[in-house]
Amino acid sequence: MEKLKTDYIYRKIAGNIEKKIMDGVLKTGDKLPSVRLISQENGISISTALQSYYALESKGLIEARPQSGYYVTHCTRTLPDLVTTSQPNNWAGHEETENIIARVYSEIGKKGNIQFSLGVPAIELLPVAKLNKAIVHALREMDDSGTSYEPVEGNLRLRRQIARHSYTWGGNLKEDDIITASGCMNALANCLVSLVSKGDTIAVESPVYFGILQLAQSLGLNVLELPTNACTGIEIEALEKELKNNKIQLCLLVSNFSNPLGSTMPDEHKKKVVELMEHYNIPLIEDDLYGDVYFGAHRPKSLKTYDQSGNVLWCGSFSKTLAPGYRVGWIAPGKFKEKIIKTKLFHNISSTTLTQEAIGGFLENGRYENHLRKIRNTLHGNSLNFLRTIGESFPDDTKVTRPQGGFILWVELNKNVDAFKLYEQALKHKISIAPGRMFTLQKQYNNCVRLSYGMHWDEQVQEGLIKIGTLTKELI
Amino acid sequence: MEKLKTDYIYRKIAGNIEKKIMDGVLKTGDKLPSVRLISQENGISISTALQSYYALESKGLIEARPQSGYYVTHCTRTLPDLVTTSQPNNWAGHEETENIIARVYSEIGKKGNIQFSLGVPAIELLPVAKLNKAIVHALREMDDSGTSYEPVEGNLRLRRQIARHSYTWGGNLKEDDIITASGCMNALANCLVSLVSKGDTIAVESPVYFGILQLAQSLGLNVLELPTNACTGIEIEALEKELKNNKIQLCLLVSNFSNPLGSTMPDEHKKKVVELMEHYNIPLIEDDLYGDVYFGAHRPKSLKTYDQSGNVLWCGSFSKTLAPGYRVGWIAPGKFKEKIIKTKLFHNISSTTLTQEAIGGFLENGRYENHLRKIRNTLHGNSLNFLRTIGESFPDDTKVTRPQGGFILWVELNKNVDAFKLYEQALKHKISIAPGRMFTLQKQYNNCVRLSYGMHWDEQVQEGLIKIGTLTKELI
Repeated sequence: MEKLKTDYIYRKIAGNIEKKIMDGVLKTGDKLPSVRLISQENGISISTALQSYYALESKGLIEARPQSGYYVTHCTRTLPDLVTTSQPNNWAGHEETENIIARVYSEIGKKGNIQFSLGVPAIELLPVAKLNKAIVHALREMDDSGTSYEPVEGNLRLRRQIARHSYTWGGNLKEDDIITASGCMNALANCLVSLVSKGDTIAVESPVYFGILQLAQSLGLNVLELPTNACTGIEIEALEKELKNNKIQLCLLVSNFSNPLGSTMPDEHKKKVVELMEHYNIPLIEDDLYGDVYFGAHRPKSLKTYDQSGNVLWCGSFSKTLAPGYRVGWIAPGKFKEKIIKTKLFHNISSTTLTQEAIGGFLENGRYENHLRKIRNTLHGNSLNFLRTIGESFPDDTKVTRPQGGFILWVELNKNVDAFKLYEQALKHKISIAPGRMFTLQKQYNNCVRLSYGMHWDEQVQEGLIKIGTLTKELI
Repeated sequence: MEKLKTDYIYRKIAGNIEKKIMDGVLKTGDKLPSVRLISQENGISISTALQSYYALESKGLIEARPQSGYYVTHCTRTLPDLVTTSQPNNWAGHEETENIIARVYSEIGKKGNIQFSLGVPAIELLPVAKLNKAIVHALREMDDSGTSYEPVEGNLRLRRQIARHSYTWGGNLKEDDIITASGCMNALANCLVSLVSKGDTIAVESPVYFGILQLAQSLGLNVLELPTNACTGIEIEALEKELKNNKIQLCLLVSNFSNPLGSTMPDEHKKKVVELMEHYNIPLIEDDLYGDVYFGAHRPKSLKTYDQSGNVLWCGSFSKTLAPGYRVGWIAPGKFKEKIIKTKLFHNISSTTLTQEAIGGFLENGRYENHLRKIRNTLHGNSLNFLRTIGESFPDDTKVTRPQGGFILWVELNKNVDAFKLYEQALKHKISIAPGRMFTLQKQYNNCVRLSYGMHWDEQVQEGLIKIGTLTKELI
């Protein structure tokens, strides 16, 4: 408990200072209060005060100068914030989107490229050695060493831990409320197969993760892209209009640090959307894949937090935080539990036993929380380094999102820049980016790119970013 | 090579003697030729000749009497062979089937029951310790210890080995011809999602594995059950008729040691079906889940063996031979490769890296072949013990299949026996069986049961079988 309290205090202090830096109240070169003063003013120990500064230092926001103290280093030359709301026109450009995705995919895994296009954490950010121990431990502990089928609902140890972990967003789940899946996309696929069929229409954000578009198309579903704000997520009025007109059979939203916009729905929006969907009796799938990777003091709430009737199917995975290759995700399917279990049974029988058990043990021992603290810190630092470098090297009219968690920046370039041309140019310099056209079925976001910062920040990465800025200037 | 040759000879000799016993040419109590004589007649070593007798002994067919020699022990009181052909009437009894399946499933995993109802090998038959070594080896050998995504096609090492192994059935596959899946049901699900959609009709055997019925129903497909011979599989004329009448969009067949009938299509049938499907340009999914578990001298060929145009999607898994919980299966999708890859990507992204790599290594080191030899021998012995015990303890009018591989017997009881009542009765004695009504959507097979012999044979199992015979007599 004492540790948690200290954690809370140092983060709060660091957060306050960071906000002042980001708002331009504290400028590059400004001297910060001494550690002793911070300690006295807040009634905390010197070591807790120091921790605040260490946290800011690790994010590249401040630096220590010997015999002098701490100074602001972050460049506050701010690019315009991207807070606009998308205006999808639902023009059907399906084939073109598919070709662009195929083109980007054909290059996506190539070694030697700087991978700004991947939505997964680089291996350096994963706790590989500890996971290996968890696997060996699971081999020893399980009677069958994981060779037998799990119950269709999934590994009990893991489901217990996922349920327990739900307290972080105000959830009150029990192990019986959780069905495991082979990753989050498999969770979403299970939900869609269970709840809608060919010819039905689902509402999503715009821009939206292309995997969701592809999955929906493979099931013969119509996709209705709705206006979405880069800060606050889907526009509730637009969703309500479609519900009133009886246009949609299902809604799928990425509630926190969405991909690609990075938007997080405010609590009141979450509550309102859940109530709306419940009122119209239309299922709501929540993709909360990034929720655990928050930069602030608390994990944001989920849509599920506000679910009274079991109408929300809360989906997530460990692919963005622990091990994509383990294929472990989950669904809390609410009132649709029976349908979800059947679909899982018929399409998969069960998920891989060993990796589920290993992650279950990993969570049980508190290793997940420890690891999350580290990866959040790294990613937050990365996001600030990315924002700073983009601010310094991209054209002045570049707009960029400022997500408070997750892996991803959405960058809107000058209207005359064709992001697909930029993609091809960047690739010649062994830099891989994701052009905006991948994230819609419509002819939109031609001047946008998605950049992932889920990697180890170093000079090469920085130079790669600067190069994209240079190439952008050439294309204007 | 020498070892392979010896293997071949001793099995051939054992096979000949076994046939004579099964045909009743050699009867219980008959003395067999001396080991010396076998050795001289066949021009083989004494040890090879002995191996033949050991093999027959381990199957409970013969026994050694001290200072006397080998004698036939197998009871040749033969039950009528079940060689009839089913006559499905395609009456829609869907709901009833679902309830029966749900009832059986609700009890299926209960510990303490004798599990004649499970279609998976018991843990005692699996090479658990060696698989654990393979996992630990994979953790050490892979750069990322299996934490990263595999390419969507699947683990290269594994695909290479599956392709290499295809020589056993006259296949000539390359690694690029294989896409991995999360088990065989997941392989079938991928094929169906890729190739047909809601409202389409697929042709299957009757009776058919209930998982296939459930999967088809979950996708909104119509299922056409076709007449099927307990020895030779689907009736080709019936299939041809439906093809001519343009009634089906896809056909799914279990080619070898089918579940539940145990039928294996003769080579000429396989060739003919492949040609037919190709002629009508209708995709053919082959579920070859049991092909490696043959009791004869050679693995039976697959439908894929005769596939010239890429119209056959050959599916299999390691769930019946190595580790169900690893969730590792595959598809050789022929000309449908691109569709299959897309479906896998959209619904799963990839399969579990670690278990794929471990099985890849297991095959590479020849451990799979070694293990198959053992498990085939055990299962063959079990099947003979089951047939003997059923022959001794079931009513005279019982008919039973004599599969040449796989895990499963299909037993047709007296017409007046309601197998679901038998199921409920048996359960009271902690014995679990699978009533025939689970294996059709029609009101059929009410007097049939499926019995799995994929377990360690012991007195308790034998008593369980005898009990089923007693209960059956009571129900007549």
